[in-house]
Amino acid sequence: MTDAVRMSLEEVHAAAKAAMLGQGFAENHASAIANTVTAAERDECRHHGLFRLPFYVNGLRSGQASPDIEPVLTELSPSVIKVDAGYAFSPLALETGDAPLAERAKEFGIAALAVTNALNVAALWPEVERLAVRGLVGFAFVSSSPYVAPAGGMKPLFGTNPMAFAWPRLDNPPMVFDQASSASARGEIQLRLRDGEALPDGWAIDNEGRPTNDPQQALLGAQLPFGGFKGSNIALMVELLAGPLLGDKISFEQAAHDKANTGAPCGGELVIAIDPAKFVAGGDRAAQLRHAETLFSRLLAQDGARLPSGRRYEARRRTTAEGVMVPRSLVASIEAYAAGRQVTERATYEGDHITAGAASA
Amino acid sequence: MTDAVRMSLEEVHAAAKAAMLGQGFAENHASAIANTVTAAERDECRHHGLFRLPFYVNGLRSGQASPDIEPVLTELSPSVIKVDAGYAFSPLALETGDAPLAERAKEFGIAALAVTNALNVAALWPEVERLAVRGLVGFAFVSSSPYVAPAGGMKPLFGTNPMAFAWPRLDNPPMVFDQASSASARGEIQLRLRDGEALPDGWAIDNEGRPTNDPQQALLGAQLPFGGFKGSNIALMVELLAGPLLGDKISFEQAAHDKANTGAPCGGELVIAIDPAKFVAGGDRAAQLRHAETLFSRLLAQDGARLPSGRRYEARRRTTAEGVMVPRSLVASIEAYAAGRQVTERATYEGDHITAGAASA
Repeated sequence: MTDAVRMSLEEVHAAAKAAMLGQGFAENHASAIANTVTAAERDECRHHGLFRLPFYVNGLRSGQASPDIEPVLTELSPSVIKVDAGYAFSPLALETGDAPLAERAKEFGIAALAVTNALNVAALWPEVERLAVRGLVGFAFVSSSPYVAPAGGMKPLFGTNPMAFAWPRLDNPPMVFDQASSASARGEIQLRLRDGEALPDGWAIDNEGRPTNDPQQALLGAQLPFGGFKGSNIALMVELLAGPLLGDKISFEQAAHDKANTGAPCGGELVIAIDPAKFVAGGDRAAQLRHAETLFSRLLAQDGARLPSGRRYEARRRTTAEGVMVPRSLVASIEAYAAGRQVTERATYEGDHITAGAASA
Repeated sequence: MTDAVRMSLEEVHAAAKAAMLGQGFAENHASAIANTVTAAERDECRHHGLFRLPFYVNGLRSGQASPDIEPVLTELSPSVIKVDAGYAFSPLALETGDAPLAERAKEFGIAALAVTNALNVAALWPEVERLAVRGLVGFAFVSSSPYVAPAGGMKPLFGTNPMAFAWPRLDNPPMVFDQASSASARGEIQLRLRDGEALPDGWAIDNEGRPTNDPQQALLGAQLPFGGFKGSNIALMVELLAGPLLGDKISFEQAAHDKANTGAPCGGELVIAIDPAKFVAGGDRAAQLRHAETLFSRLLAQDGARLPSGRRYEARRRTTAEGVMVPRSLVASIEAYAAGRQVTERATYEGDHITAGAASA
């Protein structure tokens, strides 16, 4: 990546925000999208970083996404709140629900946030990490475009359906995972198609339901869940939690809704927050977290084992000090966006995932 | 199984309860254990059925389990309740927490039950199915003896750590899954050792951390999580939710606690209940459940795909009408238990799992 520019994280944020403003997003939406994109660049999850800006632009230009609607927060029951995103991208809705969700979790012990009618193209770890930074345990579930066959089945039905989980730590950033319930990200298949490489076993079936290692056949057929029927069950659970539970769309309905093929699945996201201090008499959260550290220590003492999110935090330390390298072609696109122009060529990063819903922790 | 006796489910319950009473369990514990055992026989999850009675007896005779302590229900916060099982087997504690949990879920939208100091040798699907029969969504998480290496690691650390999930259905029994986060049940390895069969790839590593297909080496080494690092993350999540969150034991601490090697892991179980009607304005639960049926219909329309728990419900229809076949050797053991005698020989069912925490849905 010699043809690249070094940018500080502040510069990334400013560039992303200017690009979104230049395309017509309102100030608060542009800020929230820039926050999400910058967090991804900071943690070297580049497929959700600046590379993702064209998805936001396409969503807007196609009329799929509102540029400026205000998220509407309502209380559905004492410990359940809802933020209706109004067919805008999800970052502002999630930011809107964050503090109210955390307050209710601290009051009631467990609470939930239903985000509805949101275009979801970002990772889930930012919302659960935010909760864990407040000392809470967090879960998030979102469904996406139907690319994945149920175990034993032959045709796409489930989205890649990520779930995320975060646990607070005392002297470290939270333990967080954010993983698709598919065996691979769709983008990993697309990259292998481009590069003429075969797929590993277990990733996909062709449109007759036969196992395939051919990326082209896989894209015409279906992706597979991770871990056989158990991963398929996780995918099914995520569909139910992000769709019918919230009165929002199932994956196959999202595909029908995305008439402009923006690749921005529109639906619900369920976020659950738990206050550990409300789960033990006396409520000594620090003691609970110290206890968890004994598990993490034993895990990290094993050669080869690592905590999820460790790689992101290493990247974070590095990029916070050194900034990130951004391809000049992408910088040019971002500048064009900021100037209000449309860009048809999409920059890419070698080897990175390029769909929403990939494992990214 | 020619040398077997046909028993109605009522007879199974009566025999199991008499066996537990004969061994010294109090009436309410004997009833709750019999309920659990009968539900397992009914659904042909025989490894949690009558075959499991020796585990309860061993737990009692070793002094590991209390025969008669009353579970203590307390409210930790408005939507979090706790049932301290007092080092007794879990069924009575779970029955004690069931209705209060459901009430709080219906009042607050989401609620949690922390069961602590419980000996867990039963499946998790009964407690989440009960919630779903009430129209609620249920989750349950429990950790167990440390047999499973984290992904990339070499040594046992996690339990087989099942999680269960239930979704209510309108005209059908609930959709329920209950699955270990290990690739296989420990009992499946033990059966292959007995039968001289090799293990499938991906089940285990030897005590040097190398992949093995040898059951003996696997039992000396470690089991593997299902689905690689994603299943390992699920196992880690379950450890945190059933242990430090509840102020209860992590798997490796449970092993140290089971001094009599009863195979009855003692620790916590987290149960979460959600009322779908509290997640949408207006609260039309039936509409939400009808919506979910459109997903189930599409899944079932695919040849080869099936809903988790479908097999259990088929068995239930059959055994409710026809009863179950029980080996005479096991019937003899049960009668001996009822007469207050100790039995050293354990009956077994060919081909069934024989450890707690196996996938059983």
